[in-house]
Formats: sequence, C-alpha cells, structure tokens
Amino acid sequence: MVHTHRIALGFEYEGTEFSGFQTQATNAQVSTVQDQLQTCLSQIASHAVETVCSGRTDSGVHALQQVVHFDTSAIRPMQAWTRGLNGLLPKSIAVRWARTVPDSFHARHSALERRYTYVLCSEAVRPSLRRHQVGWTHHGLELCAMQQAAALLVGTHDFSSFRASQCQAASPVRRVSELRVEQSGALFFITAQANGFLHHMVRNIVGALVYVGSGRLSVAQFQAVFAAKDRRLGAPTFAPEGLYFCGTHYPDYFNIPKPVALEMLGGHTNPLKA
Amino acid sequence: MVHTHRIALGFEYEGTEFSGFQTQATNAQVSTVQDQLQTCLSQIASHAVETVCSGRTDSGVHALQQVVHFDTSAIRPMQAWTRGLNGLLPKSIAVRWARTVPDSFHARHSALERRYTYVLCSEAVRPSLRRHQVGWTHHGLELCAMQQAAALLVGTHDFSSFRASQCQAASPVRRVSELRVEQSGALFFITAQANGFLHHMVRNIVGALVYVGSGRLSVAQFQAVFAAKDRRLGAPTFAPEGLYFCGTHYPDYFNIPKPVALEMLGGHTNPLKA
Repeated sequence: MVHTHRIALGFEYEGTEFSGFQTQATNAQVSTVQDQLQTCLSQIASHAVETVCSGRTDSGVHALQQVVHFDTSAIRPMQAWTRGLNGLLPKSIAVRWARTVPDSFHARHSALERRYTYVLCSEAVRPSLRRHQVGWTHHGLELCAMQQAAALLVGTHDFSSFRASQCQAASPVRRVSELRVEQSGALFFITAQANGFLHHMVRNIVGALVYVGSGRLSVAQFQAVFAAKDRRLGAPTFAPEGLYFCGTHYPDYFNIPKPVALEMLGGHTNPLKA
Repeated sequence: MVHTHRIALGFEYEGTEFSGFQTQATNAQVSTVQDQLQTCLSQIASHAVETVCSGRTDSGVHALQQVVHFDTSAIRPMQAWTRGLNGLLPKSIAVRWARTVPDSFHARHSALERRYTYVLCSEAVRPSLRRHQVGWTHHGLELCAMQQAAALLVGTHDFSSFRASQCQAASPVRRVSELRVEQSGALFFITAQANGFLHHMVRNIVGALVYVGSGRLSVAQFQAVFAAKDRRLGAPTFAPEGLYFCGTHYPDYFNIPKPVALEMLGGHTNPLKA
C-alpha cells in the first residue's frame, strides 16, 4: 500500500481564456483551469493527480484565491508545488501557496464560507484597459439604493430569484453573512460572503442591483422580486468579467489563508476633473 | 478649396496586442494603435485621416490618455468621434473624449510636459491576473533607497545613461519636473513627468531603480551611472507591461484634459494577513 499525503494549494487565475474551472468530461475540446492544474501537478508528482476545489467558477470568472486539495504519494520539497508548478502552468494561473493538510481537510466540504467580489464600472465609455477585469454599465448608479437593496439579502433566505435555471443544488436556501456595495470613483465593488452560492447567484444579484442603481427597479420592487422566489422575475445575469472568487473560510485549525481583498484600478473617473 | 477643422481625441488602450502606437511604414504585417485609429476615423470621416500623437508608445506599453489631433472636412456630431468611433475600434482601444481645437493646436508640438506611471509588482510569485498590466520582480525592494535615487533625476539633465541606443532625439537633455516612487503593498508606482522623454527612458530608469531597491546598486553608484552619461553602464530596460502613458499637459487655453492618475489593483499583499 502506497502512503499518500494531502496538500492544499491557493492560487489565482484570470478566467478570460478558460471555459471555467471544472474539467468537462463531455467536452475535451475546451480548456479549463482544472485541466491545466491537474496536468502540471501530475508532471510534478509523476502520477495522475486529481484535485477537489473549494468553489467552481464559470467561464470568464477570475479567482484571487481558489483553494484545492489533492492526494499524492510523491515526496517533494514544498517549493515544487509552488515555484515548480508555476514554471509549468500557463501564465494566466499562478499558485501562491502550498501546504500539507490533514486528511480530514476537504477543499469543498470543510468550507465554512466563501467570498466573492464583483467589480462594476459605471461610465459612459466602455473600458478598454480593464475590459477583461470589470463588468460595465453605461448607466449612472445610485449607490445608496443599491446598498439598501443589498442589505435585504443578508441572512438565511431562499435565493430562487437569483438562481440559474440549470442550478443543481439540492436547496435554494443560503446563509449570506455579508453583502456590501462600495464605490470608488467609477467603480462599484459588490462583495458577497455566504456559506455557499447557487449557480450564477452573484451575477444574478449584480444584475438586479444594477437595475436598482439605475432606477429601473425601486428597492421595494427589488424586495418583491426577491420574495417571489421566481427566477423569471429577476434581472439578466451580469457579465462574468467582473467577478472574482476571493477565497474561502475554513475552520482555524486547518490554518488555511483567509480570503484576500481586491483593490482595483481606480483610474479615470472623469479626466476633465483630473 | 475644402475647409477643414481640427479635432483632438483622448483615448486609452491596452498595448499588449499592438506593436506600439506608431504606424510602421516598413512593416505592414504588424498592427499598431495608430493603424486601427486611422482606419476607423477614415470610415467616419469618409476620407483618409492622418493623426499626430502626443507621445509614441512602444509595443506592450499602455495609455490612460493618449492625445492625437487630426484634420477633417467632415461635419459630424461630436458623438460620432467618441461613441461612433468606439463602436468601430477594437475592444482594447477606447476613445474617452473628443473636442474641436484651433488649428494652432498640435498634439506633439503644443505639449508642455508628458506624464508616465510605471507599475511594478514586487512579490515572490509571478502575477497572473495582472500579468499584462504590471512589471514584476521577485526581489524585495527598499522604497527609501529608490526614492533617494529618483530624486537625483529631477531637474534639467543629460539622460544619456537612460537612453536607448536607437534613440533618434537630437539632444539627450530633458527637464524632469517630477520623479516619484510610491508603494502600496506589493505594488510600486513610479511616476515621471518631463518636457519630453528619450526612447526607453522611463523603462531604463525603472531598471536602474530596481537595482537600487534590491541592493544591487547603492544610491551613490546610481548617481555615478547617471553622471557617466553612458548607457552601457545602466541597468537593463525594464518590461513594457507596467508602463502607462498618463497624458500630456498643454497650455490651458487649449482646454485639453490633464493627465489622469492611475490607481491600480492593490490585491494580494500577503494573504496570511488578510
């Protein structure tokens, strides 16, 4: 019997060029983050490596700190799983840390809460430099109304109104511990933390918050959409470019780095005022 | 005789996919920002349009606010030169403003000062999300030493030590009004403002400042390199990815928007501290 040990990795990626995180068994033509990661890990381990991630991301969605675990029989210096791995990975993926974890650690099941930030650019002109890194609306947005609407979602609720029709979760109920909207010039940062997220949940919430911010929905109407538990009443799913998976909270005894904060390109609010 | 009028445009671009700003008459295979801009402007004007820019940028270098002027006989609503143009341009270029200027305005000759910011990421791990938008060094950097070295360059000096061998400027003397190094977590922002820049001047200065910050050159040695007026003694040219052309100061009576500030992706300093 071969003795294996478990390793956890934290890594960032730009989702632009990938068909999401997860390997797609039925479609070998597409490239996913997991494909890339497993191929390179297997090279270093000299055996096939399978990874389990904390939270899958969709095509075009980024991660500041995705967490995976894998089991390996290979004895390697820890640098092999960071610097060595980064030498093999595509430039759009970078491992930031690796550590040995007990076999009881599970990247998905041990997670207490996950955290996402959506970066939304509200400007008359479409972004060019940041086009892969922010969602964009040409509408002006009313911060205060968006904050009022966002606050309604905190707590344990049925999120069916913000759930993709193809979502496979057993229950539409999630406990949201934080839902914050902040503004820095033309950029709005929408941060959500919850015990888990339904498919497209953050992007569907962002879509509805943009409706509120631009005046297309009142806060009361937003509340009614939420209460209806009916996805057909919600706003369209917002673009993936602005969404960042920031990381996962695990029980402290696993000693896994906490989610990281995104501070983003301020730039350009109004060149006339600069 | 056809009456023409002069229009100035301010626009941003991501330089990653372009072979610099300027049209290359001798190499029709490459794509430049000027090529793209002139093709689209000519479509809107219904005649061939030639542009003059404030400052050329190299391959991979970005602009927050490049300024060009052109002459046209076409009478169009100003929105045609902004929103209309943005509908035709590649997504990596976005016009931010357009305005009619007097014929005495010249994007290059009327410029008083130009401004660049270099964004340098100092981290053990290579960047992935920001890989096209920052320069990177794995060395830790000593901010104070870099600031001391940078201060030596302010004023009117011979910048031969930071001048590319292929530079075609008549004189190596430039007046630098500002050269500032600031730190925000893992990111260093090096901002330079001058009446003009020699070829590769900012990237060569950044290369030397990285030597100073990492302890490879003392401030006194940096000063000696600068005083020697000999490019062969300088540090290598730093990577283009981190360089941003922020804009140009013109005499106030032209009423051209001032250079814009870059506030950048903070992110990730140390996930363990987050």
